[in-house]
Amino acid sequence: MAKIYYASRTAPVNIAVNLRTLTTASCSESFTKDELWLNGQSHSLDTPRTQQCLRDLRKYREELEAQDGSLPKLSKMHLHIVSENNFPTAAGLASSAAGFAALISAIAKLYELPQTASDLSKIARKGSGSACRSLFGGYVAWEMGQLENGEDSKAVEVAPLSHWPDMKACILVVSDDKKDVPSTSGMQLTVKTSSLFQHRVEKVVPQRFEEMKKSIRDKNFPLFAELTMKDSNSFHATCLDSYPPIFYLNDTSKRIIKLINLLNESAGEIIAAYTYDAGPNAVIYYEQKNESRVLGLLHAVFNSVDGWQKIDTELLTPPSIELDPTWGRGVSRVILTEVGAGPQDSDEVLVNLETGLPK
Amino acid sequence: MAKIYYASRTAPVNIAVNLRTLTTASCSESFTKDELWLNGQSHSLDTPRTQQCLRDLRKYREELEAQDGSLPKLSKMHLHIVSENNFPTAAGLASSAAGFAALISAIAKLYELPQTASDLSKIARKGSGSACRSLFGGYVAWEMGQLENGEDSKAVEVAPLSHWPDMKACILVVSDDKKDVPSTSGMQLTVKTSSLFQHRVEKVVPQRFEEMKKSIRDKNFPLFAELTMKDSNSFHATCLDSYPPIFYLNDTSKRIIKLINLLNESAGEIIAAYTYDAGPNAVIYYEQKNESRVLGLLHAVFNSVDGWQKIDTELLTPPSIELDPTWGRGVSRVILTEVGAGPQDSDEVLVNLETGLPK
Repeated sequence: MAKIYYASRTAPVNIAVNLRTLTTASCSESFTKDELWLNGQSHSLDTPRTQQCLRDLRKYREELEAQDGSLPKLSKMHLHIVSENNFPTAAGLASSAAGFAALISAIAKLYELPQTASDLSKIARKGSGSACRSLFGGYVAWEMGQLENGEDSKAVEVAPLSHWPDMKACILVVSDDKKDVPSTSGMQLTVKTSSLFQHRVEKVVPQRFEEMKKSIRDKNFPLFAELTMKDSNSFHATCLDSYPPIFYLNDTSKRIIKLINLLNESAGEIIAAYTYDAGPNAVIYYEQKNESRVLGLLHAVFNSVDGWQKIDTELLTPPSIELDPTWGRGVSRVILTEVGAGPQDSDEVLVNLETGLPK
Repeated sequence: MAKIYYASRTAPVNIAVNLRTLTTASCSESFTKDELWLNGQSHSLDTPRTQQCLRDLRKYREELEAQDGSLPKLSKMHLHIVSENNFPTAAGLASSAAGFAALISAIAKLYELPQTASDLSKIARKGSGSACRSLFGGYVAWEMGQLENGEDSKAVEVAPLSHWPDMKACILVVSDDKKDVPSTSGMQLTVKTSSLFQHRVEKVVPQRFEEMKKSIRDKNFPLFAELTMKDSNSFHATCLDSYPPIFYLNDTSKRIIKLINLLNESAGEIIAAYTYDAGPNAVIYYEQKNESRVLGLLHAVFNSVDGWQKIDTELLTPPSIELDPTWGRGVSRVILTEVGAGPQDSDEVLVNLETGLPK
């Protein structure tokens, strides 16, 4: 076995600091093909999107090797990638963005690439659209770009983590109804069939994008929250307007939306915001100073599920709203988290350096 | 007690021929105020919208009385209105449209007004927007009109019932979750807060409106069905895009949508269409010639509920789709119906002609 070169990086799932993917990228002249092991299972790297990412990274490495003949020719070697999530994949939390970000980040470190996070985000975007954001920590914007082919679509930092560190999030993992009637779904269907989507992209999002960046720079939580909720509504509206319609929100998701509205109404100000990705799980944002009121309500409704160990629930403010005991149904777990840093170096090595296979 | 003048008319709920409101309108010099009894309960006629309708109808009557001095001065007398639905109001079927249409229609008959159904629809629209359509039978379009104040907004007949008599409908009454978190709702919220609504009104609906009328004139069911489903999706999308969002469709409604998609896919053609009003109940349209296949699936899924007595379910085509026994949950009743005639005269009189009170 020839020498094995390696590097390890972690990347967070969305903003959840305690949910992350750890990836070790390694290469060696002995390896006979590019391979990936994800949570102990062998996966193909042979998809067009992944191959495009690997080609882009190798090209950057080649440029370095051309400038400095003493560098090992890593760009010519096959890659062995080993990746592990520290959370159950069954939770239904989108992990492909974190996975791609950790993969790109680990290979970039292995190749000692000088490219910035924004440059790498362009590569990540080709692998999995939203992965481009996961190259950064703190507050990140994904810019659409001007080019038809999307080559200039990239993520940029709006503000570092230190600018607004007291943004917290509570993820409500919603149990999915596996027995439901199957449905077609996908963003491409929305682009193709929704008559409201084009209006959203051209008129609604650009304005909201600027307001959202301003709300973060100003640390204006009520504005940030309102924009977050409105954009979540608007996204899911265009999904519903697809033909056939796509539904990511279920009755539990809708109940959580109404609960957050009740909470803000009873508080007399906006102290919490919901948002939903392409699935039924809710992410509830709030500021540290309002944690007692926000988690006071959420704990009162969802106290029967796992995930409250991090806080002293005795100290939370009891909700002033009259609750129905059935409102808690449909949520299987809470995850208390906060805005975190982006991909990080790790000393943990997932590749056996004798065999080049997963440990 | 002075002489009581009276007239009775029925109006259907949406297209459901066997669900109707019966209304007797009466007036007398002895009556001391306008009064309404609905399903045995006294209701106020003192809302601005209702008063506007009564003023308009009395104005038309005054014109008649001015032309012919021998006519009794009904326009000067107070009205007693008695109205009854032949279906349970708890079913959650929108009945206010039928109610207003029957009210307008009964008073117009009492007053012997010469105005056309379209003229009367303008009055009904002021009482309850969609009531304007219920003045007609068959296929009806509600034209938005050009005027800012809506005065020229009215219903027109697209085609009479006889043009396309084999249009059938199956209403799936969806049990509502009364224990749900309360929500704000209403069309005015959508108009005010949805950034997609204006685009729907200005760009999406006008084109679809023309295509829909053409599909009816051509008796083109697949086109009619596609437009119906797309417009239902689009309407509910703008509700979801409201702030706070409005949800009329629940998980049962969504399951029915997916079922109809599965049915059409397995048929290889569009033989059924779903549509949803401001509520979770589904109306499924189909043509008589496809009844066996459409009801074959619906009966297989929803056979445990009431409403199938009208047909011989033994003769239905068994569905070719593998069904899950849990898909039937959440539906409480089916109503098999068809496109019917509009308001009709009735010999039934709900007013006691001695006392002027409900019988």
